[in-house]
Order: sequence, then C-alpha cells, then structure tokens
Amino acid sequence: MTQMTGPIDHDIVGEVPPAPPGPIAAVEPARARSAAEEARTLVATQRIGALATLSDDGRPWASIVTYGATAEGFPVLYVSTLAEHGRNLARDGRASIVVAEDPAGGDPLDSSRVTLVGTANRPEGDELEAARAAHLAALPGADAYGGFGDFSFWVLRVDRIRWVGGYGRMDSADAASYFAAEPDPTANAAPHAIAHMNADHADALLVVAQALGGHPDATSARVVRIDRYGMDLVAESPRGAGTARVGFAETVDAPDGLRAATVAVTRRAREAA
Amino acid sequence: MTQMTGPIDHDIVGEVPPAPPGPIAAVEPARARSAAEEARTLVATQRIGALATLSDDGRPWASIVTYGATAEGFPVLYVSTLAEHGRNLARDGRASIVVAEDPAGGDPLDSSRVTLVGTANRPEGDELEAARAAHLAALPGADAYGGFGDFSFWVLRVDRIRWVGGYGRMDSADAASYFAAEPDPTANAAPHAIAHMNADHADALLVVAQALGGHPDATSARVVRIDRYGMDLVAESPRGAGTARVGFAETVDAPDGLRAATVAVTRRAREAA
Repeated sequence: MTQMTGPIDHDIVGEVPPAPPGPIAAVEPARARSAAEEARTLVATQRIGALATLSDDGRPWASIVTYGATAEGFPVLYVSTLAEHGRNLARDGRASIVVAEDPAGGDPLDSSRVTLVGTANRPEGDELEAARAAHLAALPGADAYGGFGDFSFWVLRVDRIRWVGGYGRMDSADAASYFAAEPDPTANAAPHAIAHMNADHADALLVVAQALGGHPDATSARVVRIDRYGMDLVAESPRGAGTARVGFAETVDAPDGLRAATVAVTRRAREAA
Repeated sequence: MTQMTGPIDHDIVGEVPPAPPGPIAAVEPARARSAAEEARTLVATQRIGALATLSDDGRPWASIVTYGATAEGFPVLYVSTLAEHGRNLARDGRASIVVAEDPAGGDPLDSSRVTLVGTANRPEGDELEAARAAHLAALPGADAYGGFGDFSFWVLRVDRIRWVGGYGRMDSADAASYFAAEPDPTANAAPHAIAHMNADHADALLVVAQALGGHPDATSARVVRIDRYGMDLVAESPRGAGTARVGFAETVDAPDGLRAATVAVTRRAREAA
C-alpha cells in the first residue's frame, strides 16, 4: 500500500467497507508499487481515457479519447480538428486526462484511476515519428485515418499526476518520479495469474496467508492483486476477512515471471509453516 | 439513425469499418431515438462518468465521479471538498461530464457517449431533497458518507449536450430538447433482449431481415441494438454484412415491453414473407 502524503481524497462515493482485521503474527515488510509506478502502469495498460480541455467560452469540456503512451508516459492522442476537443487543443493546449482501470467484475469504486495534467503540443520531426509509433502500438487500427487531413497527433506533456487506487489507496506523484518510474511489466499478465491462483491453487494461497501473511488462523485465502513486487491476499479467519500483503523475494522483471514468483513464494511459505 | 446536424465529429480513432451493403428491397421508415433521447437514456442508465472542472491555476482537471440523475436529467454529484474536483467546484461551478456506454464486449469505439456542459450548484431545501433522492436511487450505498461533513451534493445544471453514438451516429441537442426527452424505459432490458433474440430466435430475426429489413437474400441475421422504437439488425447475405433498421408498430412504454414488441414484429414479418 502506498504511503499517503496528501489529504484523504474522497474522490468518489460508495459503500465504505469496514476496516478488516489486521495480521496477528509478524510479517516481513513487502514492497508495493509507488504512486508513480501505479500511474505509469495504468497509463501503459489502458487505451481509453476521458480528456478535459477548454472550450472557446472558457468552460471545461469532457470527452472520450483513445491514446497510446510514449516511453516517457506521455499520452499521444490522434484527434480531428472537426471534433470539439481537437478545436480546443488547437486553441489552448492545457489539458488533463483521467484513465481508469477496468473494474473487471469487481467494485468500480475500488478500482484504480489516474489524472494527468499537462500541455498538449503537436510534435514534429523525430518526435512526431515516436508519437505516431507509440500511438499505433496501442491502437493498430488507427492508421486507417492516416489519409484524413483533419487528424493530427498531440502529445500531452504531463507535469502533474494524481493516482487513486481505491478505498484508502492514493497519492500524488511529481513529473520527475513519473518519468523515472517503469510500468509494471507483469500488469497485463496479472488478471490471468489472479484467476489461475484462485481457481487452482487455493491450498497454496492458504499456506501463504497463514505462514507469511500474518493470519495463522486463516481457513481460506484468495489473491486480489498481483504485481511485480508481491501479492495482496484476503484471508478468511474466525476474526473475519483480513488483508495481507506478501512480497516476492525478487522483483519480477519479465512479463511472464509471475508463475515462477508465485511458485517461489509458495515454497517459502511451506518451509516457514 | 439520428440526423446529423453538426459537422462530422471524428471524436475518437479506430479502424473504420467499410460501408455495409444497403437494403435492396423497399423498407418502411423506422423511427429512431433522437440525440436528446439518446443522451437522456445514457445518463439515466449509467452511474459513473468523467468530470472536467477548472483547477485553481485555470487548467482543466479530469476525474472519475459517480452520479445519479434528476427528473430533468441533471447529474447529481456527491463530492468532498477534500478531493480536488470538490475544491474546484466550490471555486468555479463550470463543469462538464462525459458518460460512456459499457462496451459490453463490443467495440468500445463504436459505443455511445455523451458530453454534458453546465454549471454545478449546491441545491437547497426541496431541491436538495430531490437531489439526494436522485443520487441515492442510483447509488444506494452512498449514504454511508452521510456523516462526513466534507461531502456535499452538487447538481450540474446542463445547458449544452453533445451525443456521439459510434461510427457516423452523432448529434447535438439543446437544453430544451434534452429536458423534454424521456429516457428510453427499455434501456436496461435491452442487453438481455439482444442476447436472448440472438441465442434463441435466429430464425425469427432472419425472417424480419428478409421481409421487413430490405435484405430478401439474407442467409442469417442478428440484432445489434434494440430500443423502444425498433431494432437494428446485421444481415449476412452473398453481398456481405448489411444493416437494417426495423421499427416496432407501436412505441414501447414499459420496461418489460420488448418481448411483446419483438413477437409482434416477427409475426408481421412472417405475414409479409
């Protein structure tokens, strides 16, 4: 869980879950993704966001956009001057984009979103080629619009970042830490890993929750989040449903590395049990 | 299909589908929802949108919000002054919200979205009670925040509406037609009706496409959209995949009226075949 440096951000409203029971045994400290890493990961894994621009009367204008992301994490838009947001950017490049995680059947109010604020510019030369490549990598079909003269690439040069991860998980990041952060290479593989662990390895998750997660009285456990640094479990015990963060011994650097990491953490739990 | 009164709005970018083959037999004119009805329906059926507000430095700020809708179609937000968008509204009520249809496994670039622009105010007295009721009807869990003093209800008084329905379906609506329009009462039932017709009534859909949809050479047909006025079919024929709009004889006024309407249109098609 990311440290909260700002005020509690009651961004959106929902049923507030009661505080879960905490661990009752010692747990090793486990690294979690920083707010900057969360933001970079979310921007890298999604392709659709909501853009806020300024209309000619000075009012904000919200619209849906598709985007790709540059190596720096700058969203690249490909918009038409026939669309209101395209006309707005041409007049005033100040813009913001919010990108939200797919709730994927879960609680949409407990899912991750990030707001990026910056100034959009039309890139030129090598920068234009890099922007085009970043956009097409995310949206391969978009080159069908290549022949339309009213379409241009825009790069949103981000200077302010606010990430909200769900209930009680939120933080801001400055531009320098955002650019320095790496998107989690395991992000696209995580949903499958979560489904697989919960479907086929409930016994392993229970041992992990008992031996490493601080819930020795757990009767069942499921994983709710996996990332390159570890996993978040929900452990059922006579005390109720408690949460546990269990770190991997080594940071996962490859997109297909979650399997080895979960096997290793299970072995470590069985040795400690 | 809604009449286009504005310029073509290349809102977002995707693979442009080729123009489908049109009908080769006479078809009766079929009513479709107006842009105002589309906007009202979308706002009434969704609960999550992206809000654009103005930050203290004058830049736009995009964030995720939950909302309910009043009888006039005004979004009701319940936001905290601890969140940036709450502070923004307290300083300057000018705001915009974009609400998008769930793509539901379909093409997200061919799904419906609407941008509303207006000014947000804190309601008082009877208006506050109406706003609270509208919000809680959409988000029953939200009253858990009732005890937090930093939360207030805000009503976005809409004065400008832009609806985009997907590829080539788009229009603007003025405030008067937006308020006068009724949300489609069948909207929540439509996804189930579509799935049911395609799974269990392919034979009926084929006859409808052949006899009423202008595709007498169709070899199969599926429904892609149903509303209170009729349905949109995609008919496969040796000419390719063509589209057909087939109207119901009577407008459906009840949420559970789609079954009777599709039975009636099938009977009409069998009589005409």
